[in-house]
Amino acid sequence: MNILDIIYKKQCKEVLSKEEIEYVVSGYTNGLIPDYQMSAFLMAVYFVGMTEEETTMLTLAMRDSGDVVKLGDVKGYKVDKHSTGGVGDKTTLVLGPMLAALGITFAKMSGRGLGHTGGTIDKLEAIPGFNTQLPIDKFKENLNKIGIAVVGQTGNLAPADKKIYALRDVTSTVASIPLIASSIMSKKLASGANSICLDVKVGEGAFMKNIDDAKRLASLMVKIGKNAGKTMSAILTDMSSPLGNAIGNTLEVIEAIETLKGGGPKDLEDLCSNIAAILLMDANKVENFEDGYRMANETLHNQEAFKKFEEMVEYQGGDVSYIVNPNKFEESIYQKNILSEEEGYIKWIDAFKLGEAALRLGAGREELGAPIDFSVGIKLIRKPGDFVKKGDVLAVIYHNEKGINEAKKLLAGAYSYSKEEVKTKLILDIIR
Amino acid sequence: MNILDIIYKKQCKEVLSKEEIEYVVSGYTNGLIPDYQMSAFLMAVYFVGMTEEETTMLTLAMRDSGDVVKLGDVKGYKVDKHSTGGVGDKTTLVLGPMLAALGITFAKMSGRGLGHTGGTIDKLEAIPGFNTQLPIDKFKENLNKIGIAVVGQTGNLAPADKKIYALRDVTSTVASIPLIASSIMSKKLASGANSICLDVKVGEGAFMKNIDDAKRLASLMVKIGKNAGKTMSAILTDMSSPLGNAIGNTLEVIEAIETLKGGGPKDLEDLCSNIAAILLMDANKVENFEDGYRMANETLHNQEAFKKFEEMVEYQGGDVSYIVNPNKFEESIYQKNILSEEEGYIKWIDAFKLGEAALRLGAGREELGAPIDFSVGIKLIRKPGDFVKKGDVLAVIYHNEKGINEAKKLLAGAYSYSKEEVKTKLILDIIR
Repeated sequence: MNILDIIYKKQCKEVLSKEEIEYVVSGYTNGLIPDYQMSAFLMAVYFVGMTEEETTMLTLAMRDSGDVVKLGDVKGYKVDKHSTGGVGDKTTLVLGPMLAALGITFAKMSGRGLGHTGGTIDKLEAIPGFNTQLPIDKFKENLNKIGIAVVGQTGNLAPADKKIYALRDVTSTVASIPLIASSIMSKKLASGANSICLDVKVGEGAFMKNIDDAKRLASLMVKIGKNAGKTMSAILTDMSSPLGNAIGNTLEVIEAIETLKGGGPKDLEDLCSNIAAILLMDANKVENFEDGYRMANETLHNQEAFKKFEEMVEYQGGDVSYIVNPNKFEESIYQKNILSEEEGYIKWIDAFKLGEAALRLGAGREELGAPIDFSVGIKLIRKPGDFVKKGDVLAVIYHNEKGINEAKKLLAGAYSYSKEEVKTKLILDIIR
Repeated sequence: MNILDIIYKKQCKEVLSKEEIEYVVSGYTNGLIPDYQMSAFLMAVYFVGMTEEETTMLTLAMRDSGDVVKLGDVKGYKVDKHSTGGVGDKTTLVLGPMLAALGITFAKMSGRGLGHTGGTIDKLEAIPGFNTQLPIDKFKENLNKIGIAVVGQTGNLAPADKKIYALRDVTSTVASIPLIASSIMSKKLASGANSICLDVKVGEGAFMKNIDDAKRLASLMVKIGKNAGKTMSAILTDMSSPLGNAIGNTLEVIEAIETLKGGGPKDLEDLCSNIAAILLMDANKVENFEDGYRMANETLHNQEAFKKFEEMVEYQGGDVSYIVNPNKFEESIYQKNILSEEEGYIKWIDAFKLGEAALRLGAGREELGAPIDFSVGIKLIRKPGDFVKKGDVLAVIYHNEKGINEAKKLLAGAYSYSKEEVKTKLILDIIR
């Protein structure tokens, strides 16, 4: 087999065979295929695309390039959830404890954030002492004991994807639906859940800017997962405005705690209850979606989910006193109110600009391995649909020495208003 | 400026600016842009294409990456000719002396062949002592004294093209009309002729398999040359069957000599007379094409062209006794007749297969720098349009120890026959 022939076949819009796709993945991973040929191949895929079958084979080849976690010795119905990434997305921190409280095993391996705000792992590390680097045995032990564990991905999970993604990032070949789908799914399929729910974000603050692309990506990932024997679902959710009110690591942990105690923002509570309902149905814990939604939502108001979160923090070495008393979290030195300069209903708040602002304040990473300032971020006081007058507080910027001027400028341009009342919609579609 | 932004712009089908194209060419040539980003860029160009203006800017940027030969101090009207490469193409060896005999300065820098048979430079080196590596002063001196010189390209002619072509070759991005056009024209525009005639070959034995692609390529190259201030023309010629009767370096030199003395194959004589007529018109030496054709053709029958060839060989250090008496050329050890197994008119002879056969015999290079066996090759006894009976000799294979079985097999599959009379057409179009 020859990489030039395979590139040419793709250029001619022919369908690649299993052997050819495996040759590309293993050849690139072990260094036989040089970067310059792989990038030519990826660009050809960018233009020509891949069939569902090709994308499944690519996904499996990348999954099999490293360790595949086996959870056969973990009891219960194991579920996993993945978000394509948005601004203010602390869903995992709320959803996991909700499900564990209902007897579903929430086994999550998560990535570190590269971008606007930290990833789930970074947010959890804002809790002093919290250990996200559990060895696999301890991960399974916690799952068996308390039904929940959230850890960082091991270094050897889908190494082919890691190498290919790094190349895509520097060759403008990230924005290809089959390549995105196979990258996400190779890692998801390498961790051993029975059912996976994908939260595909749509809008300015997300990678998928429009609903059609998001649907194509979601459907493709659901099919790949099913082809690999998983129970699959995807929920398409709006990310034109940020999720919840808090953006920034500590601020988001505190908001998650409030939500786990039934006092969080409605959009976040609604999204978590939706995803939980889907997974409860997958686990045959409920007869219908409505029952699942109600049962899941209850865990937020009867403190069951909060108790599970406390337990998880304890089992992963975190200081539970911060969870019990969130005032203990270190706050940023300064807070700056952002006032409305217009009157009207807020139509939307540009999640991308808010993410950029948080990044400039130090809440995210501009490059791999860079440190994060947990305390900085933005808290939205008014959300889309709210009516505001001139001078009303729109948001508070939590900042230290860095980035406040850029952040102010970005926020000033982030709000759109309407004279008429504004209806917002969070859940755009569910694909199963 | 940033290569990722430029790749993305091309992916979005936007037109690149002069500055962006110059950034890509100089960045890649000086090593600032790595291979893997350049190959992604080239693959994007493969799919999206380039406008005439972009292709011109790319050509000029590649031309200006190295030396640009100035022929201001060379007397007369300077012409150059380029063939996109075919099987049995010894046109330069005949055309150059014809033009020089008529007072046109034929200043040719030629490439070495990589492929089926040797390039012009390899063919000339089949003449003992012939020096194709003249320094630029000696090149100009010969042009001033005898009006003709054919030399190898200097190392520093369009080095950007050299580096880019090497990358295209290993990333399946050769077959892109703007990239082919800019590659050819960057080198042509770096040598200082007033007028350039491009011989674009069409058919199985050529890079352009169909007339439409060939026309697009030819028109684009003519426009680029005109944009750069040159007098331009292109002649589209059939390469479904080989040109002339001889394939292989020494065999082709001998056939060129026969043609220069008026006894060569009619198709070769016709093609050379056509190109000469175009260039004579460009030089204002004749009023119309017919006069040019007649005048050029005459040089083959009154020995003027042959005398000029003798002179060129002498001025470039070659042993003229071989030209005067071609029997002196070393012949291959073996000759093998290939007989017809059918009766009918020969419809066409697959030039690609004959080229492959010559390569297997040792007439060409399978890799850069490999040695060539000058004496081997194929001589066609019957050509398309000829009527043959079973057992008639179709061709003679001149071979040494290497490749005879593969060559025989390739020749056996190369002939197509027809019950009806066959008309052939060599000149398909002329673009000016």
